[in-house]
Amino acid sequence: MIGGGRDAFIGAVHRMAARLDDRYELVAGALSSDPERARQSGRDLRLDPERSYGSIDALIEGERRRDDGVDVVSIVTPNHLHYAAARACLEAGFHVICDKPMTTTVTEAEALCAAAEAAGRVLAVTYNYSGYPLVRAARELVRQGELGPIHRVQVEYLQDWLLEPLERTGNKQASWRTDPARSGPAGCIGDIGTHAFQLAEFVTGLRVRRLAGAVTSVVPDRPVDDDAQVLLEFDGGARGTLWASQVATGHANGLRLRVYGRRAALEWCQEDPNRLYLRPFGEPARELVRAGPGTASPTAPIRIPPGHPEGFLEAFAQIYRDVADRIEALEHGTPPPESALLAPDGREGLRGVRFVAAVLASSAGGMRWVEL
Amino acid sequence: MIGGGRDAFIGAVHRMAARLDDRYELVAGALSSDPERARQSGRDLRLDPERSYGSIDALIEGERRRDDGVDVVSIVTPNHLHYAAARACLEAGFHVICDKPMTTTVTEAEALCAAAEAAGRVLAVTYNYSGYPLVRAARELVRQGELGPIHRVQVEYLQDWLLEPLERTGNKQASWRTDPARSGPAGCIGDIGTHAFQLAEFVTGLRVRRLAGAVTSVVPDRPVDDDAQVLLEFDGGARGTLWASQVATGHANGLRLRVYGRRAALEWCQEDPNRLYLRPFGEPARELVRAGPGTASPTAPIRIPPGHPEGFLEAFAQIYRDVADRIEALEHGTPPPESALLAPDGREGLRGVRFVAAVLASSAGGMRWVEL
Amino acid sequence: MIGGGRDAFIGAVHRMAARLDDRYELVAGALSSDPERARQSGRDLRLDPERSYGSIDALIEGERRRDDGVDVVSIVTPNHLHYAAARACLEAGFHVICDKPMTTTVTEAEALCAAAEAAGRVLAVTYNYSGYPLVRAARELVRQGELGPIHRVQVEYLQDWLLEPLERTGNKQASWRTDPARSGPAGCIGDIGTHAFQLAEFVTGLRVRRLAGAVTSVVPDRPVDDDAQVLLEFDGGARGTLWASQVATGHANGLRLRVYGRRAALEWCQEDPNRLYLRPFGEPARELVRAGPGTASPTAPIRIPPGHPEGFLEAFAQIYRDVADRIEALEHGTPPPESALLAPDGREGLRGVRFVAAVLASSAGGMRWVEL
Amino acid sequence: MIGGGRDAFIGAVHRMAARLDDRYELVAGALSSDPERARQSGRDLRLDPERSYGSIDALIEGERRRDDGVDVVSIVTPNHLHYAAARACLEAGFHVICDKPMTTTVTEAEALCAAAEAAGRVLAVTYNYSGYPLVRAARELVRQGELGPIHRVQVEYLQDWLLEPLERTGNKQASWRTDPARSGPAGCIGDIGTHAFQLAEFVTGLRVRRLAGAVTSVVPDRPVDDDAQVLLEFDGGARGTLWASQVATGHANGLRLRVYGRRAALEWCQEDPNRLYLRPFGEPARELVRAGPGTASPTAPIRIPPGHPEGFLEAFAQIYRDVADRIEALEHGTPPPESALLAPDGREGLRGVRFVAAVLASSAGGMRWVEL
Repeated sequence: MIGGGRDAFIGAVHRMAARLDDRYELVAGALSSDPERARQSGRDLRLDPERSYGSIDALIEGERRRDDGVDVVSIVTPNHLHYAAARACLEAGFHVICDKPMTTTVTEAEALCAAAEAAGRVLAVTYNYSGYPLVRAARELVRQGELGPIHRVQVEYLQDWLLEPLERTGNKQASWRTDPARSGPAGCIGDIGTHAFQLAEFVTGLRVRRLAGAVTSVVPDRPVDDDAQVLLEFDGGARGTLWASQVATGHANGLRLRVYGRRAALEWCQEDPNRLYLRPFGEPARELVRAGPGTASPTAPIRIPPGHPEGFLEAFAQIYRDVADRIEALEHGTPPPESALLAPDGREGLRGVRFVAAVLASSAGGMRWVEL
Repeated sequence: MIGGGRDAFIGAVHRMAARLDDRYELVAGALSSDPERARQSGRDLRLDPERSYGSIDALIEGERRRDDGVDVVSIVTPNHLHYAAARACLEAGFHVICDKPMTTTVTEAEALCAAAEAAGRVLAVTYNYSGYPLVRAARELVRQGELGPIHRVQVEYLQDWLLEPLERTGNKQASWRTDPARSGPAGCIGDIGTHAFQLAEFVTGLRVRRLAGAVTSVVPDRPVDDDAQVLLEFDGGARGTLWASQVATGHANGLRLRVYGRRAALEWCQEDPNRLYLRPFGEPARELVRAGPGTASPTAPIRIPPGHPEGFLEAFAQIYRDVADRIEALEHGTPPPESALLAPDGREGLRGVRFVAAVLASSAGGMRWVEL
Repeated sequence: MIGGGRDAFIGAVHRMAARLDDRYELVAGALSSDPERARQSGRDLRLDPERSYGSIDALIEGERRRDDGVDVVSIVTPNHLHYAAARACLEAGFHVICDKPMTTTVTEAEALCAAAEAAGRVLAVTYNYSGYPLVRAARELVRQGELGPIHRVQVEYLQDWLLEPLERTGNKQASWRTDPARSGPAGCIGDIGTHAFQLAEFVTGLRVRRLAGAVTSVVPDRPVDDDAQVLLEFDGGARGTLWASQVATGHANGLRLRVYGRRAALEWCQEDPNRLYLRPFGEPARELVRAGPGTASPTAPIRIPPGHPEGFLEAFAQIYRDVADRIEALEHGTPPPESALLAPDGREGLRGVRFVAAVLASSAGGMRWVEL
Repeated sequence: MIGGGRDAFIGAVHRMAARLDDRYELVAGALSSDPERARQSGRDLRLDPERSYGSIDALIEGERRRDDGVDVVSIVTPNHLHYAAARACLEAGFHVICDKPMTTTVTEAEALCAAAEAAGRVLAVTYNYSGYPLVRAARELVRQGELGPIHRVQVEYLQDWLLEPLERTGNKQASWRTDPARSGPAGCIGDIGTHAFQLAEFVTGLRVRRLAGAVTSVVPDRPVDDDAQVLLEFDGGARGTLWASQVATGHANGLRLRVYGRRAALEWCQEDPNRLYLRPFGEPARELVRAGPGTASPTAPIRIPPGHPEGFLEAFAQIYRDVADRIEALEHGTPPPESALLAPDGREGLRGVRFVAAVLASSAGGMRWVEL
């Protein structure tokens, strides 16, 4: 693992997710860019001190030399460090699991995809919300034609934790996420907008062909956006709206997707992830539940039965499990299971980076339409 | 009553609403533009045959001559007839209650306001959703500063009954609503978009200063829009989105408003009208109920206690009651009660007509920003 | 109308309900047992002073003498006065609509049924919750076998307004309802328990054959019960529980019914009356909405379309409308419409009174089983 | 681990729960009473073949001999085997985590508590629902007096998977759970009723002093109960109802608790575990969310922030984490953290077994009151 030391948030999430299905063992890390902090963090996690490295280079070098060196590296640093770390790991022959947004520029994202391909290694991006079983069931419903042709897609991802200027109070999470030097030119639209964008494309199977958006900073003097509204046009003509906000009072982590087809609509909300609403035109609405009737999907293996709620960590773990399946298939030369094909890869990572760039370009151009 | 004969929908609603609080008696009507149908409809409603008129002119002439002639005329015809009927009634000295949109052009709307003023008569427009007690409680919460400065307003009004081309099957409601000759140039944006617009301004107390919108017809060859997406900018800088659709699969009458302030947000949905959610930043969300703690408002008189649901008709009746209070105050020269001041009048009717014209202009101009 | 003067609660509800569908006109009343208050209340309602009577006897005598005397009398007094008033009205040839519980003793209830039969007049009891369209739709679903054989019925009616000893603060509603001289020996179990009992039998079509219950007073020194728990056994073997409470903190008017059959279960809650949940075994749960797919019923005429919420008053009005249909059919010698047959009559009133007596007997006997 | 081999359900749950917080490593097992199946199951889990034992005795013997022998044994067999396994492990000096119900007789349960005490070892029982953060927050609210004196407790645990006689189709879970030889004399009341009972006492801090209950088998010829209704009386006079059913059509795993106090009520439902409703008398209801305002509790450590749902596995993991803390404290002679004190121990296990016995006795005695 690269990043994820003391005070980090997402690193611990990755570790729990990796552990849940018993497919990974954390054996080495460069857990902080500060060597002393890296060492302490390694101790916290009971890493072998020899394998708790003070830098990315040291980790790569050390692990390559070992017979039992790591197979996969998870990169959970602030955004601006993703690119160099991921590239070095891929080139050193490791598979890479990278947090999103994959990089802070389109050029870097393209280069990373190329590097993965050249190395013949798996490059996965943790669009973790696509690991929810009902998100995958929703995708299946669309593919099976239950919704009919889609004409409207509404997606929103709402948080309120940046309603106050936390970055001025020393909050570590707020500080790097609102600092263009570390998060890249995008704030909210990169941090959570990319999740919403990926979710919409993932479930509908449609691609956004152009968009027009406006980003804004509701908190004065914030150097990156904290709220973004984007109009979407999809291949085939469906229209949509994406609203991402980190100043949406009263929302903790409100990622909600609504898809409207000619035959039925569906709605799913991340804060209530074990329910999926399907509303066929002219029939009563149906409440589908995880692992219940109508939601079985080979892409969402069942850990525990319906009525036993699964949550964020389980969805995150699904991505890790899928990546493990993909790596095993690659190494054994066997076809991966269907679910493994859904693990978001570098191309999806690149698409998210392109989305961010397009929104920023549109907003800067007075909300003009930009092709994607 | 003008309009509202056999097969009409909204006429019966107006009659139930007028009756509920025992402030009106229906004694005369020109219930259809077809004299024979008008007569039959009058019989259905047990009108005195002498006062069941075959035309608007006959009604005006007949009622003016009587000592016990009507005080107020309700106009519930298709949109294109509102203007002439309302104007004639006002000029004849009657108060007028007119369905929305008030007229089909801005010019007519302005003329109607002028006519009401010249006549010294009440001209009310049935933006009935602003009669819901919790909508008024929401407005009070904003006025009292509970939300702090508002930065975001999201409103949507979603139906799905026009997902099929009903207008080609002889459905009366669908036919006139999708016929520009009778509904005016706007379809969905006029029919229900105006309600959403009025609700947003009513609750927030803010005025939209400019907008950019796109209207579309999801059903091919429909001559008016059935879906509209509008970006809003309010005085003071708040931003918002209005989405109105009559092809939103799975929604019956989903009018939903969300208002985000720096201190709290609120959410109200017409299909669940006895609950109002207030979400203060950093505190647990609160569920406010009609007539319950925190929702008392002089502008929303209590008919029945909390837990006894009120609905659409009661809200509609509130508008009728408010208009009655306003007329009585006007005629007695006394100040009207506070609630009566909330009955939407011609100026709000005009504003709605302007909104429709602005959206159509923006959409025709490639979604350019249009001042309101 | 008898009772329902100033400060009364349910009288105004009856008047609005009677008015809504335009089948009744209030023309006479003995609105209070205090003649002066009766007169004032008559003025409030703009009754002809001649027909605003100071006593029940005066009303009966006065109206019998008139050619245009009333057809129907609504009795909305405290419980202990129902019997004498209803009996006198029936014997005088009026139809009677009586609030529940119909009487305070079984003997009186039986006598009243006999009196109605002897007079050939309609005796209706306002179990108003059975007027909700979705309650009737639920009943239809059971009759059509959608639930399969029923094995469990859970009903609860929860309020919290008596959590404080309001009767000691002069609250009029609390005072008479907790005074055995006026409410009869039962408190909560009579006031709201009877509604829950009737709802359970109405929807399931099953009859309770025996019960075991315990009533209690959570507020010390209250002379009647404010909370009651009753176990039910139905014909055919289904079991159930009824919980009625007026000290259930946080509930305003929470009447909720759940019926479990071998094929499906249903759930309906009065505070959210436009939705009915049907949960077929092994299939996704369905949300049925008023006037929507799957809920059409000849017993629940549609006033307004789905998505336009109806509430407590509309359901109450349905009972009034049904009674009007029943009276018309009786007077014209024609068969009443199917919906009219659902208006609760004296036999259902009697059954409710028997239920109360059985619960009190069981509770007094240490919760022994009592046949009904 | 004892039990939990191929086809078992709860064994895998225990393993995921143990793994999540990285406090346990599974190194040995007697995973099935069939040696061959035990061996295969051990291979599935990549156990060292030497430590994959064919019997409990072999496991105990083998692990005692090793320097790196296990510290803790999880017992996840069918109920009738808990006692002997747990006793042997405790006497051999291992700490024990035992599934519920702890034993099938009161005598055994008492003996097990004594054995744990004699051995000075931790005996924990996986009443896993008490590991939910909001269950612990609810308990805190009660302790802090937010609810005032409690007068009513309603708890229900509803499933429907036994609505069909699955035990006759070879379903392994159904077979042992409805076989008195393996599940003990109780069916549903032991399998899930004990969870409901523990939850009610855990949150309220009150002890049931007597109860009266009726168990029944809705499915004909089923040898154990599948539905149970129990009236409860608590120390201090609060009353309550517990309803447990495995034939409650439409419910997957509906464990719901409602507690009513003089100042406020609370409601929590396992199928929506990240929300807790607090309803203060005379104030708006509040929705408390996991890790959000008003729910911080030293007894529920925060893994991930509000809005990131946690579920069944996380709650189960909390019990495992608490037990780890308790064992560490015991072994280091330090005081355990507050949360660790909440891990249910043998006394709670015993109490559950007594509860089952009391319900069966009451039911057999015609629903007489039985002291607990």
